[in-house]
Amino acid sequence: MLTTDALYARTSDEAWVQAMLDAEVALAWAQEALSAIPPGTARALKAVSDARRFPPTELARGSRLGGNPVIPLVAALRQEVGPGSADWVHHGATSQDILDTAAMLVAARATELIDQQLASLCAGCAALCDRHRSTVMVGRTLLQHALPITLGLKAAGWLMAALEGRAALGRVRTRLPVQLGGAAGTLAALGDRGAEVAGAMAEALGLAATTLPWHTNRTVVVELGAALGLVSGVGAKIAWDVALLMQTEVGEAFEPAAPGRGGSSTLPHKRNPVGAAAVSSAHRQASALVSVLFASMANEHERALGGWQAEWETLTTLLRLTGGIVATVSETVGSLEVDTTAMARNLERTGGALLAERVVGALAPTLGRERARGAVEEAVARTGASGRPFARELAEDPLIGAELTEAELAALLDPAGYLGSASVFVERALAAYHGS
Amino acid sequence: MLTTDALYARTSDEAWVQAMLDAEVALAWAQEALSAIPPGTARALKAVSDARRFPPTELARGSRLGGNPVIPLVAALRQEVGPGSADWVHHGATSQDILDTAAMLVAARATELIDQQLASLCAGCAALCDRHRSTVMVGRTLLQHALPITLGLKAAGWLMAALEGRAALGRVRTRLPVQLGGAAGTLAALGDRGAEVAGAMAEALGLAATTLPWHTNRTVVVELGAALGLVSGVGAKIAWDVALLMQTEVGEAFEPAAPGRGGSSTLPHKRNPVGAAAVSSAHRQASALVSVLFASMANEHERALGGWQAEWETLTTLLRLTGGIVATVSETVGSLEVDTTAMARNLERTGGALLAERVVGALAPTLGRERARGAVEEAVARTGASGRPFARELAEDPLIGAELTEAELAALLDPAGYLGSASVFVERALAAYHGS
Amino acid sequence: MLTTDALYARTSDEAWVQAMLDAEVALAWAQEALSAIPPGTARALKAVSDARRFPPTELARGSRLGGNPVIPLVAALRQEVGPGSADWVHHGATSQDILDTAAMLVAARATELIDQQLASLCAGCAALCDRHRSTVMVGRTLLQHALPITLGLKAAGWLMAALEGRAALGRVRTRLPVQLGGAAGTLAALGDRGAEVAGAMAEALGLAATTLPWHTNRTVVVELGAALGLVSGVGAKIAWDVALLMQTEVGEAFEPAAPGRGGSSTLPHKRNPVGAAAVSSAHRQASALVSVLFASMANEHERALGGWQAEWETLTTLLRLTGGIVATVSETVGSLEVDTTAMARNLERTGGALLAERVVGALAPTLGRERARGAVEEAVARTGASGRPFARELAEDPLIGAELTEAELAALLDPAGYLGSASVFVERALAAYHGS
Amino acid sequence: MLTTDALYARTSDEAWVQAMLDAEVALAWAQEALSAIPPGTARALKAVSDARRFPPTELARGSRLGGNPVIPLVAALRQEVGPGSADWVHHGATSQDILDTAAMLVAARATELIDQQLASLCAGCAALCDRHRSTVMVGRTLLQHALPITLGLKAAGWLMAALEGRAALGRVRTRLPVQLGGAAGTLAALGDRGAEVAGAMAEALGLAATTLPWHTNRTVVVELGAALGLVSGVGAKIAWDVALLMQTEVGEAFEPAAPGRGGSSTLPHKRNPVGAAAVSSAHRQASALVSVLFASMANEHERALGGWQAEWETLTTLLRLTGGIVATVSETVGSLEVDTTAMARNLERTGGALLAERVVGALAPTLGRERARGAVEEAVARTGASGRPFARELAEDPLIGAELTEAELAALLDPAGYLGSASVFVERALAAYHGS
Repeated sequence: MLTTDALYARTSDEAWVQAMLDAEVALAWAQEALSAIPPGTARALKAVSDARRFPPTELARGSRLGGNPVIPLVAALRQEVGPGSADWVHHGATSQDILDTAAMLVAARATELIDQQLASLCAGCAALCDRHRSTVMVGRTLLQHALPITLGLKAAGWLMAALEGRAALGRVRTRLPVQLGGAAGTLAALGDRGAEVAGAMAEALGLAATTLPWHTNRTVVVELGAALGLVSGVGAKIAWDVALLMQTEVGEAFEPAAPGRGGSSTLPHKRNPVGAAAVSSAHRQASALVSVLFASMANEHERALGGWQAEWETLTTLLRLTGGIVATVSETVGSLEVDTTAMARNLERTGGALLAERVVGALAPTLGRERARGAVEEAVARTGASGRPFARELAEDPLIGAELTEAELAALLDPAGYLGSASVFVERALAAYHGS
Repeated sequence: MLTTDALYARTSDEAWVQAMLDAEVALAWAQEALSAIPPGTARALKAVSDARRFPPTELARGSRLGGNPVIPLVAALRQEVGPGSADWVHHGATSQDILDTAAMLVAARATELIDQQLASLCAGCAALCDRHRSTVMVGRTLLQHALPITLGLKAAGWLMAALEGRAALGRVRTRLPVQLGGAAGTLAALGDRGAEVAGAMAEALGLAATTLPWHTNRTVVVELGAALGLVSGVGAKIAWDVALLMQTEVGEAFEPAAPGRGGSSTLPHKRNPVGAAAVSSAHRQASALVSVLFASMANEHERALGGWQAEWETLTTLLRLTGGIVATVSETVGSLEVDTTAMARNLERTGGALLAERVVGALAPTLGRERARGAVEEAVARTGASGRPFARELAEDPLIGAELTEAELAALLDPAGYLGSASVFVERALAAYHGS
Repeated sequence: MLTTDALYARTSDEAWVQAMLDAEVALAWAQEALSAIPPGTARALKAVSDARRFPPTELARGSRLGGNPVIPLVAALRQEVGPGSADWVHHGATSQDILDTAAMLVAARATELIDQQLASLCAGCAALCDRHRSTVMVGRTLLQHALPITLGLKAAGWLMAALEGRAALGRVRTRLPVQLGGAAGTLAALGDRGAEVAGAMAEALGLAATTLPWHTNRTVVVELGAALGLVSGVGAKIAWDVALLMQTEVGEAFEPAAPGRGGSSTLPHKRNPVGAAAVSSAHRQASALVSVLFASMANEHERALGGWQAEWETLTTLLRLTGGIVATVSETVGSLEVDTTAMARNLERTGGALLAERVVGALAPTLGRERARGAVEEAVARTGASGRPFARELAEDPLIGAELTEAELAALLDPAGYLGSASVFVERALAAYHGS
Repeated sequence: MLTTDALYARTSDEAWVQAMLDAEVALAWAQEALSAIPPGTARALKAVSDARRFPPTELARGSRLGGNPVIPLVAALRQEVGPGSADWVHHGATSQDILDTAAMLVAARATELIDQQLASLCAGCAALCDRHRSTVMVGRTLLQHALPITLGLKAAGWLMAALEGRAALGRVRTRLPVQLGGAAGTLAALGDRGAEVAGAMAEALGLAATTLPWHTNRTVVVELGAALGLVSGVGAKIAWDVALLMQTEVGEAFEPAAPGRGGSSTLPHKRNPVGAAAVSSAHRQASALVSVLFASMANEHERALGGWQAEWETLTTLLRLTGGIVATVSETVGSLEVDTTAMARNLERTGGALLAERVVGALAPTLGRERARGAVEEAVARTGASGRPFARELAEDPLIGAELTEAELAALLDPAGYLGSASVFVERALAAYHGS
């Protein structure tokens, strides 16, 4: 439920089996190219290496005996490929070589999709930035009205986060490595050709070559997980902002409507932020799953007892959740319904007190900051108590009224006039986007 | 891979759908019993409430629009049940009522199995305790030889942990509650019969009645998750001990052998602790998943945006992992291969220095503890350097030799004579087991 | 910053040192009572067992060599107590005996305070329940208006959670056990008196006796941590509700005001939910810390390498954070500012559509649920588009208008008339409180 | 206890206060340089900006009212600096600007130390690689003997992990940014000079300039935390390997000895891996703390309610724990005691079966792999049962004996002859080190 069909297909049990098969074929191919095994082996292996021949449920049962799915898969492959080539299937490799390589292939294939979704999310944020440069709205801190901002600035913050998330994922997804070390990381069964074979195998698969086997050095897995967690958090920030804006009392922006979408099972008048709820749920899970990877780094000696095995499901779920988050948020941002009338109305909610800081700033040069702040705070308090406009309370204050005319006060209380560097920031974010 | 077939069946997508259907039927039944809806509704509903009619994949797709699987399920149910009863399907309930009730049903059904597995684990530990009361072995602290213990005592520690884990799970699994609150927790759509309907529904399902709806009070879910995490940790402790004992250099106990079990994909001589690896992997994941539940308690107002939704997959996975752990460890303990010869050999590894504390204790009354300890430490150091027996180094020490004869020293260095309260503790653990 | 002064005092480094000293004294006392060590030892030890004599910083430095603070503490104690008794200090115990016992003492002393705070929180919730039985307000699900509830019902939900949290903490805090096992859990150095000494020591300290040493069976520590995490989550739920109610656009309830409290460093008009922010921050940390305890259960053999050591700081921080949360939330609830005018105003925000479910229910018997729901949904949509009152749109709908008079519609749209079992639930929660 | 004195000093409460003061001074300096505030302000501020003037305990108490320590700090600063400059203290900034900037300064100062420790760790690993290129030892997978490796290769794995950890930390620590956004991220109080001021402030502090304020875009904080978690995991892997090698039964390598180090409080013969225990404990905590940062990314609107506040303590603890880990592991590796005699002895433990894979490989060309594996497996089994040397069992097997002479078998069973690419990998790792 929390992922997309396309991403699910690239991370399914079948996708894992296919990636393991691809790893075995590439291993054979690499050895054949170096004349280390008889010609024709790789082709024979390739011919039977279709995941549909090897049902995951059977492999899962077989795994319980040997502790991983490669053992039953290799047995089945040897059966399928026939006696001529069987001896050379999996030659020189250990189960972890195949599983780690498969994990990197699955990750490469899945993050390719996630990267595309991130590109689309960035485009959506940039379009919002561009369109709403001048849409003034309330800026909120600790869920309280703080100062005016623009929707463009809010979207610029989303955009920067999305760009940074995409860059972080990009840094790791382009250097996902092959794994080949043999039973103890020496590639002893391959004589003195081991390192060469590993290089050829990497090339065949489009994965990065390695300096040495990384059976118990899991930095790349953790960096991948961390990048996914980061992207997940970026999506969660955006979704959460939308959910808060969508509150009945706020009503400034909405997830796109569709027939049946966001409906309640009982309440005809409700429109639920179902995208945000799904994203928040996925992000909570992703954040905890990332910690499994960090906590599992202390792999024993040359191959781990438990830490490595904890990665498989964790990484798969992280890929699915992150992809689901990005797809959902990308759709939300791309079709965000913005209610600028509500934004304008909310700017008035505090009767003008939203601009109190500005009034303090205007009075400070003459009154000194402390006195200015004191006078304005009192006017704010009177506004709260009386319900009268803040401008009126300010004008009638003897200290303030002596300094600022009603017209000056009116100008000071115009939210559109107190946006500071908002537009500079919007332009910078757009430049970062277009330069990226 | 990390669970059992039986447990998987009770936590599958289909099992969830069936539990949701059971909740809807019980809701109808409860209202019918109170004459709140037309007679015959519950029977009509029951007739079509078979999970196989409602494929999970379709429900999952439908869920994306409404944010949960109940909305499409109720729509499908109304279709199936026909116009007469359709109006009364899901009457007065909200999606969360059905999902929470279903979660409790799934949990009740799954933990029933886990409880049985725990009973079997306790029995296995108790049998080991009983059989190996007098099997002396090395006690190890910080992975170093410390003092002699018995295998019975080690098993007694496992037994107590298993009993405590079972008790913790028992406390929560017997009070899993029904959920019924309607759209905002008031059961307004049921008029003044709401509380009564909830009680009848609980009874129909064999779940606990509730004081009030717990839509955003998730203590029971967290307590369930914590109990599962606790049980998972108990299993991990036992499995980890076995894996350490199974090390090539230690070789004192082994997971049961079976054809193909623990084999390596490349190394004919290996016997891998595959059970322990699976358990360790599952426990790492379970520990992180528990934190999702704790972190998701701050549910918004009358129904959460994300926190609640994070529970579904988390709880399901926790049930599966914990059950897989207990099943594996129960099998390991029940068929543990013990090599008492290796145990005896390892007791000799330090040449007798294992009993150094005892010698200090024997010398302390005459030499004073500090001098006694100093003399014994020097003898330990000489043993390490010379490779000669500790007894010899002690006897030849002028200070020690003056106090203790060779025969006295030999008696002091007999591991079987320095077991303190080990047998008392074993008896206590067995009494706790038989009393439980 | 996230805890109270009183709780900090009970969990400080000095409090830990004192608890370790108390454990050593009790150990001596227990042995003396059984004539296992010379009379007068316990008194001599007691005389010097004042934490202020043993600065934590020196112990911390000393710890790095031996891996725990007990080793340097015992050395210092022997120095202080003088040669006569020095030999009998720490007799028969291992470092973990003292540290675990100290941890339980610290926990007992800290949770005594937390329990009192929880009692105060429960009282505050109960008072709110009682006072606001009939205060109607909007019930919100997924941050959207759902149906009317009462503030009493919301407080009843808080009360039940607080009662359950208190019960969970109570279950574990009353059975915190002593630890005494000696170097490998056999108490060998105490001959055949070990178990008896452990019992006497427990009694002396007011801790629970144990069946056997629990050096590597950490269930009680994990149950304690889980109970603290649960309480922390209960507090976070309440604080989060208040923060959401305190939003500028909602304004229904507020953390108590105090001079300087919730002020912004720049914005004179702001009133920040600083209590909620602190609680949310503490809860996030607590939830992750709980997982450290679960993940560290797989302790090696008779004493752990790392898992046990990870508990000390974790447990201390958990106690502090949880206590800080409960104290803050208790204050918030006890002095909650409620704006019933704002509550009434917000009930009108949807122009009456909040009661749409009720109108559907009223029409269903004659129109059938599907048609009724369709007609009402259309009226809701027209209200949204036109801004006219929902009652008007309903009355002018030919289908609905034919069924219900304007007076009937007006009655149906009265929030106070659609509260279902709210008052029953409030009474039940109060009964649970008074019965507790 | 889990950190170094030097690192503690850079992350202490006082260090945080000094960093906040440095941020305020730089802010004043930047504005003065742009003539936005009166000349002399920065100098006046600088004169009083000494952390020792502002006791952390008072700030902590002050924080509870305003929710962060900047509010009381600014008040105290204004007091100290006197009326002339007080108005310009903190001008245009919000609390989070100062706290985030301070966090980045603390992180920059602390990670400078950690980077140096990492350099030393890398040097230690490289020296081991270099010295033990040809030291043959058992390679272990799942805690079982697998195949021979060299200690150089094991150290090469540690070296690569340490280099990658250092690179990851380096990537983030060189781009830690300043924070300056004002109350809602627009820098409105600075008119149109805001972005310029932020740039000048960054330069003054030696921090990276920012594209826009990142009040609620926490990617850099999460990346920092993830890099620390990664480094922590790298250290944990190394420490754990040493602890396993240090087991009484294995005895191949040891943490450096020092008087009192690793001693037990009761057992004279023990030498505990106290460094590894501390590291494992710290790593467990660090892994969970990282997840707090990931889970706290969904910051509300323009400033968070809880998520941001959870970073302060978390980041501080992460810095301390990671630094403590690296310092400990660096010392362990730099002074590792290696027992090559024990390594040689352990290579013989399986009576030669360690090389079984090699024998299979030698027989495969003539017998076919399946038959070869079958015959060798039987010989392994016979060795296990009889206790006779594997060579003898092989030679006496009719199938094997017919293919290989005793001399050939002896050569095949020489561990030094079956190291595959180990030396290539060692050279590569050293090249990566020297090139780094």
